[in-house]
Amino acid sequence: MEHYANRVSRCREQMKRDGYDALILTKPANMYYLTGDGRLCAYAMVTREGTVAMGVPQTDIEDVKQNARADFVTGFDDEVGLIHSVAHFFKQFEIKQGAVGLEKAFLPEPRLGMFTHPHAKPEEVEARDCTPLMSELRLVKEDREIELMKRAAEVAAIGMKAAVAMVRPGVSENDVTAAADYAMRQAGATDFYRSYVSSGPRTNIAHGLPTLRKIEQNDLVMIDLHPVVNGYSSDLCRTVCAGVPTPDQREAYNIYVRALEDTIAMVKAGVGMMDLEQNMHGIFKEAGHGEHIFGPPIHGIGIEFEEAPLPAGHAFFHGEKAPPPLPKNAVIAVGNCGLYTGPWGVREEDTVAIGQEGPVVLTDFPRQLTLDE
Amino acid sequence: MEHYANRVSRCREQMKRDGYDALILTKPANMYYLTGDGRLCAYAMVTREGTVAMGVPQTDIEDVKQNARADFVTGFDDEVGLIHSVAHFFKQFEIKQGAVGLEKAFLPEPRLGMFTHPHAKPEEVEARDCTPLMSELRLVKEDREIELMKRAAEVAAIGMKAAVAMVRPGVSENDVTAAADYAMRQAGATDFYRSYVSSGPRTNIAHGLPTLRKIEQNDLVMIDLHPVVNGYSSDLCRTVCAGVPTPDQREAYNIYVRALEDTIAMVKAGVGMMDLEQNMHGIFKEAGHGEHIFGPPIHGIGIEFEEAPLPAGHAFFHGEKAPPPLPKNAVIAVGNCGLYTGPWGVREEDTVAIGQEGPVVLTDFPRQLTLDE
Repeated sequence: MEHYANRVSRCREQMKRDGYDALILTKPANMYYLTGDGRLCAYAMVTREGTVAMGVPQTDIEDVKQNARADFVTGFDDEVGLIHSVAHFFKQFEIKQGAVGLEKAFLPEPRLGMFTHPHAKPEEVEARDCTPLMSELRLVKEDREIELMKRAAEVAAIGMKAAVAMVRPGVSENDVTAAADYAMRQAGATDFYRSYVSSGPRTNIAHGLPTLRKIEQNDLVMIDLHPVVNGYSSDLCRTVCAGVPTPDQREAYNIYVRALEDTIAMVKAGVGMMDLEQNMHGIFKEAGHGEHIFGPPIHGIGIEFEEAPLPAGHAFFHGEKAPPPLPKNAVIAVGNCGLYTGPWGVREEDTVAIGQEGPVVLTDFPRQLTLDE
Repeated sequence: MEHYANRVSRCREQMKRDGYDALILTKPANMYYLTGDGRLCAYAMVTREGTVAMGVPQTDIEDVKQNARADFVTGFDDEVGLIHSVAHFFKQFEIKQGAVGLEKAFLPEPRLGMFTHPHAKPEEVEARDCTPLMSELRLVKEDREIELMKRAAEVAAIGMKAAVAMVRPGVSENDVTAAADYAMRQAGATDFYRSYVSSGPRTNIAHGLPTLRKIEQNDLVMIDLHPVVNGYSSDLCRTVCAGVPTPDQREAYNIYVRALEDTIAMVKAGVGMMDLEQNMHGIFKEAGHGEHIFGPPIHGIGIEFEEAPLPAGHAFFHGEKAPPPLPKNAVIAVGNCGLYTGPWGVREEDTVAIGQEGPVVLTDFPRQLTLDE
């Protein structure tokens, strides 16, 4: 449990720097990072002294005590009980003024209102958004976290293998997803941040959640997997053809792979998110695909399948700050954008840790546009 | 597509009543209800005149035109483009003042901020929370919606059968979930609002997401499934024993089933949510289980696995209004609470439509605490 103590210690330093007296976290990924437990309908309060107190459903107390690194665990029966438990902790820790951090980029107004309710938060304590603080804290991964993401990447590859093996005319997008998810659960994934499988004209859409559409002869099929294994995720996308691709498709695929691999090769400590984005987009533009780009090509990944660092414009509307030059042991997914030509799209995506001198690619699955390659 | 026109027409009436000039919806369930399309990173604007305009990723325009009932579809490249597209629609529809409804119970502050941004929303247009308006609109289901939920209930039963068949010592919660999800996808489910599978001491926790824990001899196993089939969900929970239950477990299970069935029998047009809750809790209390209750026993269900009507206290913190007496063709899940004794819990849950004279139970799966029953 030592790494949780280290994380809380680093959290304290950032809280001190930013003038926080306490944080109250409800976002499962943030709770998980500091305590090892990120369940629904619960919260973790962290004080400037490094005390961690959790409020959880009354039913869950023993389970939380077994799974979480927390100094105090209290239970509540309902929302009003939750509010009172928050007030109790403010009193216990003698926090009467100053600032409390809440995740305003996560909690919609009514749920945020439970924590800012006059029966929960002392009036003199200002509520501020601690989203960027927590993202900064989680930005640089410990070696053990990268190992866990490597394992998640292996599970994603198992899912991709099962998915690709299902691709043929007459099989639905949903059938392909069923095969991928089943294989990943068998391999230890306990959750998925969405499994995207799209085919034919649907490969052109930005978020290709699976439908009952049946794959047709020569369709492109885009498969994008994000298993959660031991609390950590990875991001792996591949495009395959159920038959023979057109020359245009083959050309676009080759350009995509070249841009992706060229961009991954640029990854090392100190590189900027925008440098990577401009390189990838630049190759697309040079190849005449400037009008076919959608979406930022890079995002962070870790406990969540999409997390900070996010590119600057995107970050703002997710309550995040623009990212710094990428430090060693940050982890990103490269290839989040696609080439969307109108009737079809191509996309591949890999998970990459920032090494001191170069990329450490965590995902490992063959690139094979046609199934007999 | 006629039912979408009818829904927009009813929406207009409620907007007029509540003084809205437009709604901007981003919650997939609300978008889906009015347009037939509820994708991520998109919005639907509805005007007081009943015009429906959608803003979607640039890549998705053709797909949306094929799937959605909308008068206008525009594309954007990024968040700034989204903001400009909103401004464009305000201008096109000549909405310069009055009120726009936004889903403040769904969008956290930074994402809400895209729609209230000075470059999106005219300054004189007030932004209000339309969460309760949309929930009221969706409260009474059309007969076709109840048919779709009946189909979702059949798929849940297929998943439950596959799950129960996997229950035995040595098999993990995750393996049981894999079997359930795979069977449900094969049967047409394209998504799941979480599949809960918990075992042994974990049956006592409020939200039993599956883990790698292996079922032990004589463990209770709680399985709670919510497939999405053709856009609609159902809620089915069963508790089974991997061996021989203790007399206490058998007794608690029998009390739970009696309370559930007695409460379902009370369901008819005009019944109050609190009447149902008090009946169910009352039976638990009489039987000496007053300290083992957690959570409201009833919630609404439809496009979402948990939606309005919610019990009054719960509703407030989800931005919803306290529910009216339940009208004919509202649909609820009964059994959302459990009996949590400490070392283990029991729970069963069914999906029930409100009939004029009595309950219309949509879920159909045997109650069988032991596997040889």
